[in-house]
Amino acid sequence: MEPGSRGAAPGGVSVSAVLPAGGSGERLGGATPKQFCAVQGRPLVSYAVRAMERISWISDIIVVVSPENIETMKTIIEKYGHKRVTVVEGGITRHRSIFNGLKVFAENEFSSSLLQKPEVVIIHDAVRPFVEEDIISKVVMAAKEHGAAGAIRPLVSTVIASAADGCLDHSLERARYRASEMPQAFLFDIIYEAYQQCTDYDLDYGTECLHLALKYCKTNAKLVEGTADLWKVTYKRDLYAAESIIKDNLSQQVCVITNVKETLAQVGFLLLESLKSQIKVEAISVSLSKNNSCLQNVVSGQCYNFVCVNDKSCALQETQELVDMLERSNIPLLYPVVLISVHLDISNNSFSIGMEDLNMIKKFARETKKKNILVYGLLIQYKDPLLLQETVNSAAALIMALIKDRNPELIGQLLVA
Amino acid sequence: MEPGSRGAAPGGVSVSAVLPAGGSGERLGGATPKQFCAVQGRPLVSYAVRAMERISWISDIIVVVSPENIETMKTIIEKYGHKRVTVVEGGITRHRSIFNGLKVFAENEFSSSLLQKPEVVIIHDAVRPFVEEDIISKVVMAAKEHGAAGAIRPLVSTVIASAADGCLDHSLERARYRASEMPQAFLFDIIYEAYQQCTDYDLDYGTECLHLALKYCKTNAKLVEGTADLWKVTYKRDLYAAESIIKDNLSQQVCVITNVKETLAQVGFLLLESLKSQIKVEAISVSLSKNNSCLQNVVSGQCYNFVCVNDKSCALQETQELVDMLERSNIPLLYPVVLISVHLDISNNSFSIGMEDLNMIKKFARETKKKNILVYGLLIQYKDPLLLQETVNSAAALIMALIKDRNPELIGQLLVA
Repeated sequence: MEPGSRGAAPGGVSVSAVLPAGGSGERLGGATPKQFCAVQGRPLVSYAVRAMERISWISDIIVVVSPENIETMKTIIEKYGHKRVTVVEGGITRHRSIFNGLKVFAENEFSSSLLQKPEVVIIHDAVRPFVEEDIISKVVMAAKEHGAAGAIRPLVSTVIASAADGCLDHSLERARYRASEMPQAFLFDIIYEAYQQCTDYDLDYGTECLHLALKYCKTNAKLVEGTADLWKVTYKRDLYAAESIIKDNLSQQVCVITNVKETLAQVGFLLLESLKSQIKVEAISVSLSKNNSCLQNVVSGQCYNFVCVNDKSCALQETQELVDMLERSNIPLLYPVVLISVHLDISNNSFSIGMEDLNMIKKFARETKKKNILVYGLLIQYKDPLLLQETVNSAAALIMALIKDRNPELIGQLLVA
Repeated sequence: MEPGSRGAAPGGVSVSAVLPAGGSGERLGGATPKQFCAVQGRPLVSYAVRAMERISWISDIIVVVSPENIETMKTIIEKYGHKRVTVVEGGITRHRSIFNGLKVFAENEFSSSLLQKPEVVIIHDAVRPFVEEDIISKVVMAAKEHGAAGAIRPLVSTVIASAADGCLDHSLERARYRASEMPQAFLFDIIYEAYQQCTDYDLDYGTECLHLALKYCKTNAKLVEGTADLWKVTYKRDLYAAESIIKDNLSQQVCVITNVKETLAQVGFLLLESLKSQIKVEAISVSLSKNNSCLQNVVSGQCYNFVCVNDKSCALQETQELVDMLERSNIPLLYPVVLISVHLDISNNSFSIGMEDLNMIKKFARETKKKNILVYGLLIQYKDPLLLQETVNSAAALIMALIKDRNPELIGQLLVA
């Protein structure tokens, strides 16, 4: 999707989004506000922006940040190539920040260029990275019909009211209540009207946009059941969880590129079979230098893991060609790519690895890491044909471990199966 | 703490605990109920049991599980050496399970041996693994004074009530409400009375013990502000978070055992300094075979990471002695122990690693893994003194990565710094 091009939402409404990202992240216990904490090397806010950006029918994405973070946010947008994003200076509270975000569509003096007012505006937190198009669609459609809509989730804990003495006053019947989550969506005119009407007390102490729409515009928001992945990154444990979920998502598929002599074809075949029992495998048998179009297709897809199987003990040239192809593809822009260079060796002599080779791989991996590509070496060595299956299974287990872990400290190491 | 011995709680009350562990874990989306999901190889329920067991003034720990999991639970207790635990068959709902757990202290026919009735009973979820003695103490003391007490946390999301048409009815003012968490504690007579009085409807549809104490015994529970780590493992992301938190907790300290010739002392010193800038280091310079008492002290402590620095290219004998010592210590019983065998090499010749050595380390590591000890090899090789600091920093980074990851698939690999 090129900047400036406009898609159409289901229902034909025009839609834009406002992402408040001004929080200070006190509950996280760190110095960095949580929306700027890195997950797989990339700030959380970039995930939320990307979740909106990939939906073609969302026209403009307004990210509202506190004044001291405007430059940081602009750098993030440039580094990760985000499109259709406008950065706006936030207020001192959540509601004031959202209001500022909305003003970009309505008030000339607030922004250098007034953006086209959308029929429906989505409001979504910068710290909810996993929002899917499906729930955004549902909330937008409900907002068009009801004027306001928001995602909800069942309560995890019972909610209780405390009395002034710090004792239990009463507990709420869990089934009657829901947690109000994001995304929410509104007819622009309704939520903008609500913000214009609301008091300073609302702006300073309130947090719930649905409440404003109800109080000031008599709009009862439609509540839409959301999925578990809508949760808000709040505590350090949520950052851990986000990191693991992303690693999990990145470990769903591997592209195996085999470039070996016929005598070694059996090893390549067994390795593929072993991998296929654990992960979705796209297998390609090529000479990389031929610039195979099949490979080009995979590289332009959504695969973040590559295994190159070679029969030379140090086939860095082939690996370099793949690195170049990946770099041109933009794939490593958003997520680190894992590239495992597998070497087969069936020499009958007692094999040994020279330090020069090891240092060469390490140096190569350090250079490649700068391009967000994590290179690891894996040697499959066997003499006894009876042990071949075991060795191959061990190799597949190591490949899976490297893919799942994506550990940047282990790049350039040569593992042995 | 030996089985059967009884400590005294602050305030001198007698205290026991009931852990309901009968849930089906639907929200987790897996076949295994979440309390039996493994975190660092050990079921979650074992963490909650351990959290109670390590507090000497908790007399009995009652774990209530569904009938089909009784044998599983007994196996867990035996495998991890848990003491003072009684397994009780649960009912079909949470409240019925807790009631069953309480009956063990009050009704002869329910248990083969009637346990001594405690003055205060703690109720804690099997899926809240990180509860600390401090909050348990506070809740117990408050229960002694008020009859009932429970940990609370601020709400993360606004809570809303929905109308019959699926639209927003009203939102609650977030500051007035709290999430009711665990642990909770009660004077035994109060909560037992409440369970005896309450209706089938309560037993089948209720979830909140504080509510029962209020409704049937007019006891307004004291609410105690808890820490963020009290949260309940509910979704798959919570399992990821628990895994990361435990890895984090296990990565706070390393014991470095150095056994090298004087010529290599500088490398050992630099490595220690580099590690000290990243982690708490207990440094020991010994010949392991002397059964050094200093080392024995460390092994009997709470350190789960060991680095052995040797100047032989393959010093498995020394490593084996440490493995034996660790095995005798019971340390690997609850958590996997990381053991990194570091070999220094300053030969001027071009170094090479033989496949025989590699296979020997791998075989050794596979055996040791059965004892829950994860062995990795690390080679520090340098010829150029100018590059020594860089090499040592790289070695320290690899050590930290191995400790933080505790990856069981990478055992027996020889990494090169």
